[in-house]
Amino acid sequence: MTNSKIKTAVIGANGYAGMEIVRLISSHPHARLIAVTSRANEGKRVCDVFHGTPCELTFTHPHDPAIKGCDVVFVALPQTAGASIVGELIDSGVRAIDISADYRFDDLTLYEKVYGAKHPRPDLNDISVYGLCEHNRDEIKHAKLVANPGCYVTSALLPLLPLCKHGLATDIIIDAKSGTSGAGRKSDEAYSFCAIDENFKAYGVFTHRHAPEISEKLGTEVLFTPHLLPIKRGILSTIYFKTKDEGAAVEMLKNAYKDCPFVQYSDTLPEISAVAHTNRCMFSARFDKGRCIIVSVIDNLLKGAAGQAVQNMNIMFGFDETAGLPLYAPI
Amino acid sequence: MTNSKIKTAVIGANGYAGMEIVRLISSHPHARLIAVTSRANEGKRVCDVFHGTPCELTFTHPHDPAIKGCDVVFVALPQTAGASIVGELIDSGVRAIDISADYRFDDLTLYEKVYGAKHPRPDLNDISVYGLCEHNRDEIKHAKLVANPGCYVTSALLPLLPLCKHGLATDIIIDAKSGTSGAGRKSDEAYSFCAIDENFKAYGVFTHRHAPEISEKLGTEVLFTPHLLPIKRGILSTIYFKTKDEGAAVEMLKNAYKDCPFVQYSDTLPEISAVAHTNRCMFSARFDKGRCIIVSVIDNLLKGAAGQAVQNMNIMFGFDETAGLPLYAPI
Amino acid sequence: MTNSKIKTAVIGANGYAGMEIVRLISSHPHARLIAVTSRANEGKRVCDVFHGTPCELTFTHPHDPAIKGCDVVFVALPQTAGASIVGELIDSGVRAIDISADYRFDDLTLYEKVYGAKHPRPDLNDISVYGLCEHNRDEIKHAKLVANPGCYVTSALLPLLPLCKHGLATDIIIDAKSGTSGAGRKSDEAYSFCAIDENFKAYGVFTHRHAPEISEKLGTEVLFTPHLLPIKRGILSTIYFKTKDEGAAVEMLKNAYKDCPFVQYSDTLPEISAVAHTNRCMFSARFDKGRCIIVSVIDNLLKGAAGQAVQNMNIMFGFDETAGLPLYAPI
Amino acid sequence: MTNSKIKTAVIGANGYAGMEIVRLISSHPHARLIAVTSRANEGKRVCDVFHGTPCELTFTHPHDPAIKGCDVVFVALPQTAGASIVGELIDSGVRAIDISADYRFDDLTLYEKVYGAKHPRPDLNDISVYGLCEHNRDEIKHAKLVANPGCYVTSALLPLLPLCKHGLATDIIIDAKSGTSGAGRKSDEAYSFCAIDENFKAYGVFTHRHAPEISEKLGTEVLFTPHLLPIKRGILSTIYFKTKDEGAAVEMLKNAYKDCPFVQYSDTLPEISAVAHTNRCMFSARFDKGRCIIVSVIDNLLKGAAGQAVQNMNIMFGFDETAGLPLYAPI
Repeated sequence: MTNSKIKTAVIGANGYAGMEIVRLISSHPHARLIAVTSRANEGKRVCDVFHGTPCELTFTHPHDPAIKGCDVVFVALPQTAGASIVGELIDSGVRAIDISADYRFDDLTLYEKVYGAKHPRPDLNDISVYGLCEHNRDEIKHAKLVANPGCYVTSALLPLLPLCKHGLATDIIIDAKSGTSGAGRKSDEAYSFCAIDENFKAYGVFTHRHAPEISEKLGTEVLFTPHLLPIKRGILSTIYFKTKDEGAAVEMLKNAYKDCPFVQYSDTLPEISAVAHTNRCMFSARFDKGRCIIVSVIDNLLKGAAGQAVQNMNIMFGFDETAGLPLYAPI
Repeated sequence: MTNSKIKTAVIGANGYAGMEIVRLISSHPHARLIAVTSRANEGKRVCDVFHGTPCELTFTHPHDPAIKGCDVVFVALPQTAGASIVGELIDSGVRAIDISADYRFDDLTLYEKVYGAKHPRPDLNDISVYGLCEHNRDEIKHAKLVANPGCYVTSALLPLLPLCKHGLATDIIIDAKSGTSGAGRKSDEAYSFCAIDENFKAYGVFTHRHAPEISEKLGTEVLFTPHLLPIKRGILSTIYFKTKDEGAAVEMLKNAYKDCPFVQYSDTLPEISAVAHTNRCMFSARFDKGRCIIVSVIDNLLKGAAGQAVQNMNIMFGFDETAGLPLYAPI
Repeated sequence: MTNSKIKTAVIGANGYAGMEIVRLISSHPHARLIAVTSRANEGKRVCDVFHGTPCELTFTHPHDPAIKGCDVVFVALPQTAGASIVGELIDSGVRAIDISADYRFDDLTLYEKVYGAKHPRPDLNDISVYGLCEHNRDEIKHAKLVANPGCYVTSALLPLLPLCKHGLATDIIIDAKSGTSGAGRKSDEAYSFCAIDENFKAYGVFTHRHAPEISEKLGTEVLFTPHLLPIKRGILSTIYFKTKDEGAAVEMLKNAYKDCPFVQYSDTLPEISAVAHTNRCMFSARFDKGRCIIVSVIDNLLKGAAGQAVQNMNIMFGFDETAGLPLYAPI
Repeated sequence: MTNSKIKTAVIGANGYAGMEIVRLISSHPHARLIAVTSRANEGKRVCDVFHGTPCELTFTHPHDPAIKGCDVVFVALPQTAGASIVGELIDSGVRAIDISADYRFDDLTLYEKVYGAKHPRPDLNDISVYGLCEHNRDEIKHAKLVANPGCYVTSALLPLLPLCKHGLATDIIIDAKSGTSGAGRKSDEAYSFCAIDENFKAYGVFTHRHAPEISEKLGTEVLFTPHLLPIKRGILSTIYFKTKDEGAAVEMLKNAYKDCPFVQYSDTLPEISAVAHTNRCMFSARFDKGRCIIVSVIDNLLKGAAGQAVQNMNIMFGFDETAGLPLYAPI
């Protein structure tokens, strides 16, 4: 049975998103891992680094030759660090799903301004597909390179994209709150337990890199303020906008994802706990005199990163879109 | 030394705000408690109910005759429940500081609509003083009845009032996040540890009672969305508005509270941990193309309730405004 | 494919353990739910009560006739409340897995003393099998009625049973710490977020009901002290004992569960995060001059309740023991 | 009024204990700070480093000449790092309170074995006084050098010392649990929010440095196991022992601290929340057939470090022992 599974690898499996992909693939019915890489942990067994993990593999380096034999590779390296590695994979004929922002932007000039780096492979940027599954299924199916969307971005785009495509939302403000895993695995006093617990803060006001990603995909400027929650995982975005047609907007929100197993309109306001540890996005809307407030929730490590990456793999290989992905939040 | 202290009492000392007043007065240099009341705990010693509390008093009922001998009484009863009791105190010549919303509104019709109850003492509403200390010091000094502001309200009014008085803020949106103690002491599964921990949610969208209180005091409509943080204490309000004059707005924010020991403009964005367990409010502002974002933080139980109540008492009796109030946040 | 799955139901699906069974069965490859009951929620859809849950069922009452058509039923009712219902199931020829303590004790007199109630079905107590999977696989396979072990009990018995069977542990003290979900879904101020967060306490010193369950199964008296952790899920038991043969004890601990997918000896001391959200138990031991300290961790809702219940079902029906059960802890 | 206050300084004010001393002295009625040092922050204002802190001072280096003018200096440097600096203070005639373990041990050989370093000032070790306030008041009063006890140690010694002095406790096991601030301010992924939150672990089994400190002071070997709680502050120690005389032991525990404002026997089991943010220690005991379990709680940063240091200062200068120290736990 294992033999019929597709072969995958995770490059950069030391970070939270990478480790979550490892976890999801470990129980996936149609895929298996043949390599996981981490420069920091090269030569160590995965089970020793993440103690207790029932994974048989040993960390290798990003150029482990086994990787070239994969059907698809997940690249979970920091921004700009992995762009060339992704390029080598594609050049070798290996499909790739990139968790970083390197191949997400249509406008390379914008990318280079936002990330302060020259893009090493503009040629691939042209063929990369933006992996917001529910909106780009057909392109993802045949993509060589999928750029997995940002976590905050996913929470905002899923409710807003249908509205913006029909001119039903203007003056958009996104007040977003993320769990601390969104900052990545860090040895940094600012992310220590004593600094985060019983605390809450805004950061990146007017400057966060997810703002231009949201704006590019929506085709309109947005005001975006991220905040740091004292929880491990989950994003809640409170979205304010004006609409010229409340009725059309609410119908749009209720119907846009009718056939999507992971995206759901809710009559009650969704909480993070309803989607934590799942690959789902839930949102609800309230209207008053032309003003609208949407509350949208996802798990930042799943629908906002590793889960959407696996969902993209499922689409790329024609598997059931929900294969290996949790739908049901634990207590 | 004790004899020279003024005599106070707390009516409704079973709730979080009431208990925090008890704690503050217990180490206040110029005030002492002669009675604490709680129908639920009548006859029990405070130290037995709040185990370990080094308080010598026994809970009595709200009509404990000792209360009439007080110089000032804190009433920490739920909305509408305490309005008549406050009235009796004032009728007896005892000054009162009411933690509830009963005497906060200028417009009684608005109060009655928001709280769904007929006000029992419109006569007293006319003489009550709104206890936002930094704005009403002179009136508070001579007030018989002080209406302590709401917690969310305080976090929003302190930065916004100076701006609105000068027409420097329009299109105001307040996205506020509060610690769970803001909901009060509750036996309710929705506030159980397992429901709140690792969770975050919006509530009261378009309907929260603090919205009309903010709007009345600012003299302009605002959009207000409260959220529930998995922390015990603290409020952070992210405030969005448009301004016609960025320079004037920032100068106003930096100077409005120059002589106020508890209110401080910060160049860096303040976090809840900077003010938790203190009576301070900190805020900072960021501007971009006529759009402004203010981040304002307080401790909801201190500057948002018990601390501001004691600050009001300090003003009423001519004590140093900071007497008995913490300025310095613990780790 | 659905048709080939066995039919199950959960009686008492309003509690945490019941809901976790619903969640596990929802993605189980060989079982499906045909009924979930909850008196409190009768007539409501599961997805409305646990908002966002992608479950199609509607809560019924415990005597829902559909239940009699099940292959096996999970009963997750409070102690003594479900003993008769379990009896009716068995009388009807339906196999049952009881999450409560009702059928766990060999000694009914002890049960009646500990739980302060007359046992309604002593006849069934005689045929019930204690569902500590790794120790009773053969009996569980053919059992009509499986009594699922207590959560604290599981964390202690897995390391201690092999030792006690060989006389390798005496003077046993179990200092156990549990996440708050162990107390169940509660509307009780003592379990409110503000009472639990940033707090920690011991309870039930010398009196907790899991002490006699542990003692009966080990065949020796133990000192057991439970504590309440400010986390949602997980138990860590620190176990102190004396041994006459350190070498034999450590060999026993390392080898007793060699072929058990869910139980693992670890060289490093295991943390709760290594097993949270999994059905695994990990433990490690340290020895010094005849004194031994074992640290044992489980997820109280999975290996300590719902997970072990499903593992019991897997054994009863000849499924792969790990089917539908998570092995890999998330971040 | 300021002029009549004694002059103090904190050397090593970048750590949690140092900052808590700064906070306590800032509102102390009889002491004021004239210098705070931190190599890492030299030249920066305290209010900029700990944003929001209403402290007027600027960090200097540990040899700031102002320090020599102090009446007493708090040294909050890591073990061994501060021993020479303490020595220079004493040589200059400045009294010192050392938060580290450097001067705590009677037996220097034991100290050097436990801390793996040669002691630079054995001469001063001979004159240092162990600052467990309730037990050494008379010596502390006249001490030039006070060695502030360890946090875990304080939680254990306060209930155990009276018993051990009278031979009322044997076979002592201390299962201790500490909040994360006990590990100090750290840039270390192992203390990151995501590693600590929803987690719990034992560490230092058979090897923690507080075990020999406890054993030396009690005059008997103990088994000591520390654990790391996902809370910011507080220690709860669960202490197991055998006693030959339950009646005498309980009387001893109830009476030993009758006149001590900070130490209290409680009939109910004390929780960490009863003492967090205070300088108090509470404990309670349960007995059964010659076995005893004591639960003892303190705030690790106050009674376990900064608070006890200030209490020592109060004793050294003849101030009211409770001056400037919180007795009343917040919500």
